[in-house]
Amino acid sequence: MAARARDIDELPKNAANYTALTPLWFLQRAAQVHPTRSSIIHGSRRYTWHQTYQRCRRFASALSNSSIGIGNTVAVIAPNIPALYEAHFGIPMAGAVLNPVNIRLNASTIAFLLGHCTAAAVIVDQEFFSLAEEALKIWSEKAKTFIPPLLIVIEDEWQSIALGYTSGTTASPKGVVLHHRGAYLMSLSGALIWGMTEGAVYLWTLPMFHCNGWCYTWTLAALCGTNICLRQVTAKAVYEAIAKYKVTHFCAAPVVLNTIINAPAEETILPLPHVVHVNTAGAAPPPSVLSGMSERGFRVTHTYGLSETYGPSVYCAWKPEWESLPPEDQARLRARQGVRYIGLEGLEVVNTKTMQPVPADGKTVGEIVMRGNSVMKGYLKNPEANKETFANGWFHSGDLAVKHQDGYIEIKDRSKDIIISGAENISSVEIENTLYSHPAILEAAVVARADEKWGESPCAFVTLKPGVDRSNEQCVVEDILKFCRAKMPAYWVPKSVVFGPLPKTATGKIQKHLLRAKAKEMGPLKISKL
Amino acid sequence: MAARARDIDELPKNAANYTALTPLWFLQRAAQVHPTRSSIIHGSRRYTWHQTYQRCRRFASALSNSSIGIGNTVAVIAPNIPALYEAHFGIPMAGAVLNPVNIRLNASTIAFLLGHCTAAAVIVDQEFFSLAEEALKIWSEKAKTFIPPLLIVIEDEWQSIALGYTSGTTASPKGVVLHHRGAYLMSLSGALIWGMTEGAVYLWTLPMFHCNGWCYTWTLAALCGTNICLRQVTAKAVYEAIAKYKVTHFCAAPVVLNTIINAPAEETILPLPHVVHVNTAGAAPPPSVLSGMSERGFRVTHTYGLSETYGPSVYCAWKPEWESLPPEDQARLRARQGVRYIGLEGLEVVNTKTMQPVPADGKTVGEIVMRGNSVMKGYLKNPEANKETFANGWFHSGDLAVKHQDGYIEIKDRSKDIIISGAENISSVEIENTLYSHPAILEAAVVARADEKWGESPCAFVTLKPGVDRSNEQCVVEDILKFCRAKMPAYWVPKSVVFGPLPKTATGKIQKHLLRAKAKEMGPLKISKL
Repeated sequence: MAARARDIDELPKNAANYTALTPLWFLQRAAQVHPTRSSIIHGSRRYTWHQTYQRCRRFASALSNSSIGIGNTVAVIAPNIPALYEAHFGIPMAGAVLNPVNIRLNASTIAFLLGHCTAAAVIVDQEFFSLAEEALKIWSEKAKTFIPPLLIVIEDEWQSIALGYTSGTTASPKGVVLHHRGAYLMSLSGALIWGMTEGAVYLWTLPMFHCNGWCYTWTLAALCGTNICLRQVTAKAVYEAIAKYKVTHFCAAPVVLNTIINAPAEETILPLPHVVHVNTAGAAPPPSVLSGMSERGFRVTHTYGLSETYGPSVYCAWKPEWESLPPEDQARLRARQGVRYIGLEGLEVVNTKTMQPVPADGKTVGEIVMRGNSVMKGYLKNPEANKETFANGWFHSGDLAVKHQDGYIEIKDRSKDIIISGAENISSVEIENTLYSHPAILEAAVVARADEKWGESPCAFVTLKPGVDRSNEQCVVEDILKFCRAKMPAYWVPKSVVFGPLPKTATGKIQKHLLRAKAKEMGPLKISKL
Repeated sequence: MAARARDIDELPKNAANYTALTPLWFLQRAAQVHPTRSSIIHGSRRYTWHQTYQRCRRFASALSNSSIGIGNTVAVIAPNIPALYEAHFGIPMAGAVLNPVNIRLNASTIAFLLGHCTAAAVIVDQEFFSLAEEALKIWSEKAKTFIPPLLIVIEDEWQSIALGYTSGTTASPKGVVLHHRGAYLMSLSGALIWGMTEGAVYLWTLPMFHCNGWCYTWTLAALCGTNICLRQVTAKAVYEAIAKYKVTHFCAAPVVLNTIINAPAEETILPLPHVVHVNTAGAAPPPSVLSGMSERGFRVTHTYGLSETYGPSVYCAWKPEWESLPPEDQARLRARQGVRYIGLEGLEVVNTKTMQPVPADGKTVGEIVMRGNSVMKGYLKNPEANKETFANGWFHSGDLAVKHQDGYIEIKDRSKDIIISGAENISSVEIENTLYSHPAILEAAVVARADEKWGESPCAFVTLKPGVDRSNEQCVVEDILKFCRAKMPAYWVPKSVVFGPLPKTATGKIQKHLLRAKAKEMGPLKISKL
C-alpha cells in the first residue's frame, strides 16, 4: 500500500515543467512585456528594455566569439554606468561569471584579484584605463582558456553568476561566489520586503560593484523598472534625479544619508515632491541619521547583510503600531537590524561555543548566524575559510548581536570591534551612536586603544561639522566628553579623541582596521593622560 | 588551464547555503516577524500569525501521530474557513499532499476522487458531513498506510504539495499534482505582478479549493497579510468586508464581478472608501464587465491560467500610456490575456502541427503553450495524458489564441469551443462579448449546434437581467439578434437563442460541456428555422 501511495510524488521533471532559476529570465521577460519602457537613463543616454536585451545578447555573443564561457570569470572596472549594468546580464548569458571590481582599489590589489580569479577578460571604463593598465602590468600571468562558444542556456541554477571580493574592513579580501539560483531569489525578496512594485524608478547611488548593487541590478529587470545611473554621487545629483525622473527608490550607506541630511539648502529639493524609499545598510545608521531622513520625508528601511548573503538579507520590518510612538523611540526601533528577508530561511543569534540561541532578552550578546538560499556558494579557492565560515551547518557572520523580545536582532559590534576594558565588554557602536547625536559631530568611529591601566580603552576618531568653532580644540573635546558622561557608563567614555577625516571603503564603510592601526601607532595610553 | 578556471563553479551545496524551496517557510517567517498581526478573520473568530503557526504545527503533528506523512494524500471538504487555510500548511508540514475537494461536486464524483488519490484521511466541515458520509460509503476501499511519524522538513523541493482535480468544463477530472518549489515561486510571482505588498488584506471570494486559491493561500503568509474568510460570497458580504476590514485585494471569476456590478444600490458601499485590487480569471471577462468594475473604482487585473499552471500565470500587464485612451479601448486592451508572470519562463502561441510560433498579427490562431517552474508536475496516474500534455517539451493548454503586435496574447477559444460553420471558424468568445454588452443580458454562453445547412452554427444560451420585460420573448430575441447583426459578420449571429440560468462549476466557470449536450439534445437546426 505504501508503495502505491507514493504515486503522488513520482512524476519526473521535464522540459515543460522545470527551468533552472536565473535572473536572466527577468531581462528576457522585461523585453517582452515592456519593450519600449526606459530601462536605463544616464545623462542624455537612454535605453529601452528591448535595447538593453539586444545589447546584452550582443555582449554575450562577443564573449562567446572570444572563447569566453562557462568556467571563466570576466572582470569589469567601471562606475555605475549602463555598461556595468549590462555586464550583469551579458556576462552570465555567455555562461561566464561577472567580477565587478571596486574602482577605489589600487592597482596592486586589483592585480591580486585578477590573478586570484584568473580573469579571462577585463572590461574597463575609459576613466580607469591607466589604473587597469598598471594592474595588468603587475599581473604578469595572462590566463588563456579555450572553451568553445556555448548556447546561452543556464541548465544548472547552482552555476556561479558573480564573484565579488570582500571590501576590506578586514585586511585580506576573500572572493565571494554567488550563484544563479540565489541571485534570482534575492532579486525577488529585495523587491517584496521593500514594497517595490512593477515600474519602480531606481537611482544608482549604491555602487553596482558592491554585491551586484545588493541584487537590485536584477530586481529592476524583474520589475521592468527604470535604472537611473550617476557617475558621481552628490547630494545635489540625488535631489535633482528625484525631481527629474520621479525616483521612487535608492540604496545608500549611512554616510551617504549623512551627506543628504547635511546638504546646503540650495542643493536640496524639499519638501520632496513624492515619497522616496531608501534602503540603508553597511553599518547600523545612528538614530540621529534615521530621524533626520524621516523629517525630510524619506521613508527609510534599515537592512543588514554581507557580501556573503548577496547583500542585505535582514531588515527592520516596520510595524504600523510603531507610527504612534515618539520620534526618538521610532528611531531606536528602526536602528535595529531586525528580521530575515523572505529569501533567507534561517537567522539566529547564537552562543558560538554551544551553537544554542541566546535568550531573547535584548542583553545577551551572541554571533549572528544565517542559513538558506541567500547564503553564498563559498569563498573562491579558500577551503579553510569555507570550513570555518560554514561550521555546524550555518554561515557565521562574525557580527555580534542581541535578540530582543520581539525577535528583532540588534548588532552590538563586529567581534573585532568589541573593546575589552578592565574585563568589561564595551560596544563601540553604542558609543558611536551617542557621538553622532552631539550637535558638532558629523562622523565618528570608535576603536580599542591599548591602555596601560585597563588593557584597552575606547578611542574616538571624529569629524566635526563645517562651521564648528575649532579655535580651542581642547574645549571641543571637553564638551564632547561631558556630553558622553551624561549618557553612558563612565568606563565607556572615550579616553582618546582624535579629529580628522575618516578613511572609508568604496561603499562608504568606515575602515576600522586602518583606525585600529592608527590607534596602535599612537601607542598605549599612559595612566596619567586625560 | 580550463580545469583551473572551473574553480569558480566548483563549490558544493551545504546545510548553510541550500534550502529546498517550500511555502512552509513563509508561515514560519510570518510567525516570527509579525506574531501578533491578524492572520485569519472569520466572523467573530480571529487568529494571529503566531496562533496560525502553532495550530498548523499541531495539525501536522496530529497527522504524523496517525501515521500520515510523505506519500499520503489528505482530502479536505470545506468552504473558505480557517481550517481549510490551515490545511494548506499543516498537511504539507507532515510531508503529505493536500487535496482540497470542490464542495459542489456530488458524492459519487467525490468518491471517485478519493479512490483515485487513495486518500489516507478525509477532513470534513460540519456543513458537508452527510455529503462526505455518502461519498465514503460509495468508496468502499479504505487506504491504510503505515508510515512512521516524520520530521517536518522538506528536503526535496520537487516533493508534491497539493493535488487538485480539474473542475469539469471537460467531462473526466484529472488529478493535477503541484510541488513545493512551484508553490513557493508562484506565491511570490502572484504578489509581484499584482503590486501586492507586505500586510495586504485579502478577501477570500475565490474558493481555496480551486488551485489552492491561485496560490494566494501561501502568498498571504509570505506577505504577513490578513485573510478574510467568508462562508458565503454575496455582493453585500464583499462590500461589507471592504468597509469593515479595509480589504485591499480579492480574486474572482467574471461571474462574481457581474454580481458585484449588478448588486442593488442598498447592498453596495460606493464610492469605495479606498482602492480595491481585483484579480479576475477563469474566463475572459467581457469588456462591459471590465468597464463596469472600473467605473465603480475597482482596479481590475485580468489574468489567465489553468489548474495545471498553479492558477493564473499570464496577466494583462497594464501600461501607464493606456490611461489616456477612451474607456472602450482600455476595456478592449484589458480583456486580453497578456503576458507571462515572473514565474513562468515560457509562453507561446504555436501552430500545433509545426510547433512554430504564430506571427504576432492579432489574427492567426494557434494553441497557447507554456513552460517553466509554474507548470504542474503532471497528472496523477495518467501517463497517457502526461505524454500528450507535455509533448515537445511544452505544456499544451488546449486554449486557442492570437498574438498581438505588442506580444500580448488573446484567447479566441478553447479548441473545443470553436464553432466551425460552413468551413469558417467562429469564435464563441467574441459572440459572447457582444452579447454581454446588450443592456438586457446578464450572462451568455455560445456553443456549436449541429446545423443542416452549415454543419455547425452558433447557439446562444442567455440569462436576462432582472426587470427585463419578458412578456414577448420573441421580441427580446429579435432585439438581441438585431443588436448582433450590427456588430458582427452575418454568419456569426446566433441562429438559436435559449433563455434560462446557465450551469456553472464551483468556481463560476460556465459548464459549456453541459450546454453542448443540451444543444445536441435540441437536434440539428433545420434549414427553414430562423
